[in-house]
Amino acid sequence: MPLHPFDPVTPDEIRFAARLLGAAFPGVELRYNRIDTTEPVKNEVLPYIEAERLRKPLPPKPARLLYSYFHRLDNGVCCKALINADKKSIIYVKELPEGVQPPMDVDELAEIEQICMETPEVLAEIEKLNLPPGMSVCNDPWMYGTDDPSEKRRLFQCFMYMVEVDHPENNHYSLPCKFCPVFDGATKKLVRMDFLPGGADTATTETQPWKPVKTIQYAHDLLDEPLRQDLKPYIVQQPEGPSFSVDGNSIYWQKWRFRVGFNNREGLVIHNVTYDNRNVFYRLSVSEMTVPYGDPRAPYHRKQAFDVGDVGFGLNANQLSLGCDCLGHIKYFDGYRADAKGNPVLLKNVICVHEQDNGLQYKHTNYRTGTASVSRNRQLVLQMICTVANYEYIFAYIFDQAANIELEVRATGILSTVPFDNDNGEKVLWGTNVGPGVMAPYHQHMFSVRIDPAIDGFKNTIYYEDSVPLPEDENNPYLVGYTTEQTVIRKSGSANLDVNRHRVFKIRNDNVINPITYKPISYKLVAVPSQMLLLSKNAIGYRRAEFASKPIWVTKYQDDELFAAGEFTNQSTRAHGVETWVQRNDPTENEDVVLWHSFGLTHNPRIEDFPVMPMERISLMLRPDGFFTKNPALDVPPSTQSFNKSTLHTEAASAASCCSSAGGSKAKLYKRVD
Amino acid sequence: MPLHPFDPVTPDEIRFAARLLGAAFPGVELRYNRIDTTEPVKNEVLPYIEAERLRKPLPPKPARLLYSYFHRLDNGVCCKALINADKKSIIYVKELPEGVQPPMDVDELAEIEQICMETPEVLAEIEKLNLPPGMSVCNDPWMYGTDDPSEKRRLFQCFMYMVEVDHPENNHYSLPCKFCPVFDGATKKLVRMDFLPGGADTATTETQPWKPVKTIQYAHDLLDEPLRQDLKPYIVQQPEGPSFSVDGNSIYWQKWRFRVGFNNREGLVIHNVTYDNRNVFYRLSVSEMTVPYGDPRAPYHRKQAFDVGDVGFGLNANQLSLGCDCLGHIKYFDGYRADAKGNPVLLKNVICVHEQDNGLQYKHTNYRTGTASVSRNRQLVLQMICTVANYEYIFAYIFDQAANIELEVRATGILSTVPFDNDNGEKVLWGTNVGPGVMAPYHQHMFSVRIDPAIDGFKNTIYYEDSVPLPEDENNPYLVGYTTEQTVIRKSGSANLDVNRHRVFKIRNDNVINPITYKPISYKLVAVPSQMLLLSKNAIGYRRAEFASKPIWVTKYQDDELFAAGEFTNQSTRAHGVETWVQRNDPTENEDVVLWHSFGLTHNPRIEDFPVMPMERISLMLRPDGFFTKNPALDVPPSTQSFNKSTLHTEAASAASCCSSAGGSKAKLYKRVD
Repeated sequence: MPLHPFDPVTPDEIRFAARLLGAAFPGVELRYNRIDTTEPVKNEVLPYIEAERLRKPLPPKPARLLYSYFHRLDNGVCCKALINADKKSIIYVKELPEGVQPPMDVDELAEIEQICMETPEVLAEIEKLNLPPGMSVCNDPWMYGTDDPSEKRRLFQCFMYMVEVDHPENNHYSLPCKFCPVFDGATKKLVRMDFLPGGADTATTETQPWKPVKTIQYAHDLLDEPLRQDLKPYIVQQPEGPSFSVDGNSIYWQKWRFRVGFNNREGLVIHNVTYDNRNVFYRLSVSEMTVPYGDPRAPYHRKQAFDVGDVGFGLNANQLSLGCDCLGHIKYFDGYRADAKGNPVLLKNVICVHEQDNGLQYKHTNYRTGTASVSRNRQLVLQMICTVANYEYIFAYIFDQAANIELEVRATGILSTVPFDNDNGEKVLWGTNVGPGVMAPYHQHMFSVRIDPAIDGFKNTIYYEDSVPLPEDENNPYLVGYTTEQTVIRKSGSANLDVNRHRVFKIRNDNVINPITYKPISYKLVAVPSQMLLLSKNAIGYRRAEFASKPIWVTKYQDDELFAAGEFTNQSTRAHGVETWVQRNDPTENEDVVLWHSFGLTHNPRIEDFPVMPMERISLMLRPDGFFTKNPALDVPPSTQSFNKSTLHTEAASAASCCSSAGGSKAKLYKRVD
Repeated sequence: MPLHPFDPVTPDEIRFAARLLGAAFPGVELRYNRIDTTEPVKNEVLPYIEAERLRKPLPPKPARLLYSYFHRLDNGVCCKALINADKKSIIYVKELPEGVQPPMDVDELAEIEQICMETPEVLAEIEKLNLPPGMSVCNDPWMYGTDDPSEKRRLFQCFMYMVEVDHPENNHYSLPCKFCPVFDGATKKLVRMDFLPGGADTATTETQPWKPVKTIQYAHDLLDEPLRQDLKPYIVQQPEGPSFSVDGNSIYWQKWRFRVGFNNREGLVIHNVTYDNRNVFYRLSVSEMTVPYGDPRAPYHRKQAFDVGDVGFGLNANQLSLGCDCLGHIKYFDGYRADAKGNPVLLKNVICVHEQDNGLQYKHTNYRTGTASVSRNRQLVLQMICTVANYEYIFAYIFDQAANIELEVRATGILSTVPFDNDNGEKVLWGTNVGPGVMAPYHQHMFSVRIDPAIDGFKNTIYYEDSVPLPEDENNPYLVGYTTEQTVIRKSGSANLDVNRHRVFKIRNDNVINPITYKPISYKLVAVPSQMLLLSKNAIGYRRAEFASKPIWVTKYQDDELFAAGEFTNQSTRAHGVETWVQRNDPTENEDVVLWHSFGLTHNPRIEDFPVMPMERISLMLRPDGFFTKNPALDVPPSTQSFNKSTLHTEAASAASCCSSAGGSKAKLYKRVD
């Protein structure tokens, strides 16, 4: 099957891109940081996907585009290349300015981790711990964050932990060490040994022999208590198979059609979403995420991960396993990355697709007749789970039969911990003790979801609607009246949510009027009201993550504006993202617009979040609002026992007819006219 | 089995209560409005349930209490009686003051509905519609709301609709009539014929012959379009049965133990919740709900339903059906009500209990070893579905294995519609056209959840915690620091949510300190940030529903303070609920406190919400926060294919070992010390 412009990168493409770049720099050794697809040019894509949708003859196919970040090992310079994958030609190679760092890569992290464990200064500190036999030390290399705009080196800070037992699921995060070496990624040399405070202030001491405490383990074979014995199997069966069908990366399910995309940076993205063959969204993605920590003490101010821009959700996507990560009938998609030498590496089962039952979608009982109309809420779930060192994010795009799209984020995994001498009742103002000698600092998880709409076409308008009381005048004599106020976002900019006004953001198509409501057709965003960045406006971390200072941003579409904090976040000193693009003051009414929604969790850890965290769930929805002329799920078959085959507890199976209600005994109360 | 003080009313109890009251009024005919349980005296209950929990000898059993509202048919006076069900004795009978109306009852509504259809003035209006043969008219009697504090009669307003076809699921709400008779519930006579406006202003006309338009139907056999053919079965199997066990009204599941309660007013309530034999909550209930409409035109200002106080969720709970309302292995509970003569009426299958799978509860992959620890989120769901004329509410208490309790509300059913001449593009500022001649006004659904906590004991403290930046001083040199500020609610009162400060309300036990966090153990409320009442403070409807003007109320426990808008909401002119009780200025620190959370939906209808509404979901959670010393779900067995039995799409079944991850190929990077 020929590749579609939206398809993920293939191993062949990675190989020829590496060859192409190698040939462009004869005699120079290159170290590949990324080789991946980037978005095709939208103006070229639109006629093509419209012809696909309308089953018309296809115009010339838009070029598949690849990009690469790579380091020249002769002079250390980092470059970005853009490649036309169809023509197998380089479009450009640019040198990145000094100090602009491409993201960390998988091979590099493994290398730093290993070098750290071989560095004499690190070994000397480990020696001082005087660990008992059988115990060892490991490290998690982290992005360096930034506290000095003049810093041009590519740096890594390694957080060190003691390993109590040689077990594949030992929880080293329970035993953090108080030293933290910093390495130069180019020279692979130790830059400095940082020491971490032991108490509530910033005082540090020389490494002391370790005072033994018990590791708080999560692995089942390391627990003291037995597993629960009273959980019975719960099996989802789909004897006739799933309701979806798959054609390459296209998925068809219940009037939905879209393309599953995958890239190293964002991981799962959704392209070209139509419902009943009407355009709905051009592209949906989680464009950025940052985690600033609230611990004020050096060097923790440099703990600010950008898990998309610095690391890559795609690169860190779990290999999902049948029967572990979802129930039912599962389809998996793979991805690829390039290694440092430009060879393709398979990322197996990084996306899974399955159906789930979400209870009732609608029900109504006619109380006169006792007849109930009830339909279940079958959903199609596309899931990706990312492990970023200690922490896990579970992302799910959930499509339903009423034309809703939900994006669910579950935060789980292990808290990022710090050492803390809490054996005498000590606590801090910015964290929670989660075990002996270990504290979990307060932090925020700030996400940006990028919504590129196509509500019945590619020119849309974004506005918000507030619910407000009517004036207390002669038209509102009983003081009960309320109405809605619309504010159109006419120029690129930002906006706030307002729960107290029930503010709702909508995306409408001014060119298509609903024949019954007499208003433009639209979709609404059911946003996530959340606290924005707690960082001071004067903090470097704020300037790096300004996308997370406002919940709503609207820009006019431009190619290459995909990431809310800009393309290069690693060690950035400020962002070059939405906060910059909105300043163009572009017209955004009835234009090709993009809606960016920032939301997050202020995560002041519970002790219950340790040693592994019961998920915290955030969910936003895109919901038709005047897009149809009635409930689009009316044609979903009813929920019946013959279809669903439930079982009754204890009593013998009831003979009661399905879905008859308590009110059914009533006499008929119609007044017949004929 | 002897009855527990928390058990729902039995048919025998209804019978003897009616006999007892009949005997107390010899020669007087009584019309029973309610005969039901009410809460036992808490001070008597606590030693009893504590002895149960601790398996100690039981003290004397607290009395089961019943109450009745009834009308004396000799003089029309309404009375309330309290009855000791164990002693079979009347504790008191009180006459209600004139104008204080007990709620509507099932038999009364049916009677009004029938009388309406036999009233000559109504028939005359129907005649004027000049309906074609085969069409008929029906009516929904409504609570009258209130617009005149001097009104003492018991009134009903009947909304009239045209019935296009004689079908048990015909959607009459699509064809509202423009006349609205008002009846006196005592005399059963027509009080007045109201006329409804046809346009955007308040002008009304005499009833005109009906101009035929098509009904927007929801019933599958009345749809023009065929049903979807591509939805495949999805079957939940529990071959070893459920993980819960039931003993009378006690349920045991995964360390949880609680009693399922049911009453006519609130429907499902949960009593005496313990986790791992530790007290957590004394009682959980949805205590009130009101639906004010935003249409300013008379007589719509009187559309303000109190679905708990005026109607009763219990009385309107659906008879749930196997395989329709939930999947899997289902246990049902029944309820009872009294009819007007004091006979018990079975309310069958009004509560269902089943397990569900909610995806992953936690996951962590050790990226060094590729080993994943993954547990699913099995839940126990207690569900009740209430039909209040046109509309449906689905309530679910959801217990999980990490000691969380979620209360989920789904709003569905049919919008309350009004006639509106919209054939020439007319629209209003306070509603949405949903079909030809029919408009759905804006409205709010305002709920009050009553949380009677018992966090490791019955004396608790409620406080809120805001996340705020640390001062920009020498202790916060990098401007990243943030902390939490606690505000204890020391006196009964109300409070606001504040998303921008990430305000969280917590319930703590000051007498029990967590040995690791060094803070009092607590549960937190994950509240629902929502717009409060849009009604003017000077509107009668506001004074009737003041509970919905603030999201948080805290009171000191008193027996008989169960309902947020007070005991008698029907035609009330003001509330006698939380807004009154907080004025006592009771001490609420380390006391027997009650937390009331008001939340809601501002529901500006979408056309997609008609003719039956895809559910809108609200959810709040009670979550341990420092209650345990680590994740309480660690002992949940892992999620494995051997247990879950999923199936793979397309490709032959994979031999990959369960839950191994993409990172698994990495070398081991521990530094061994021994």
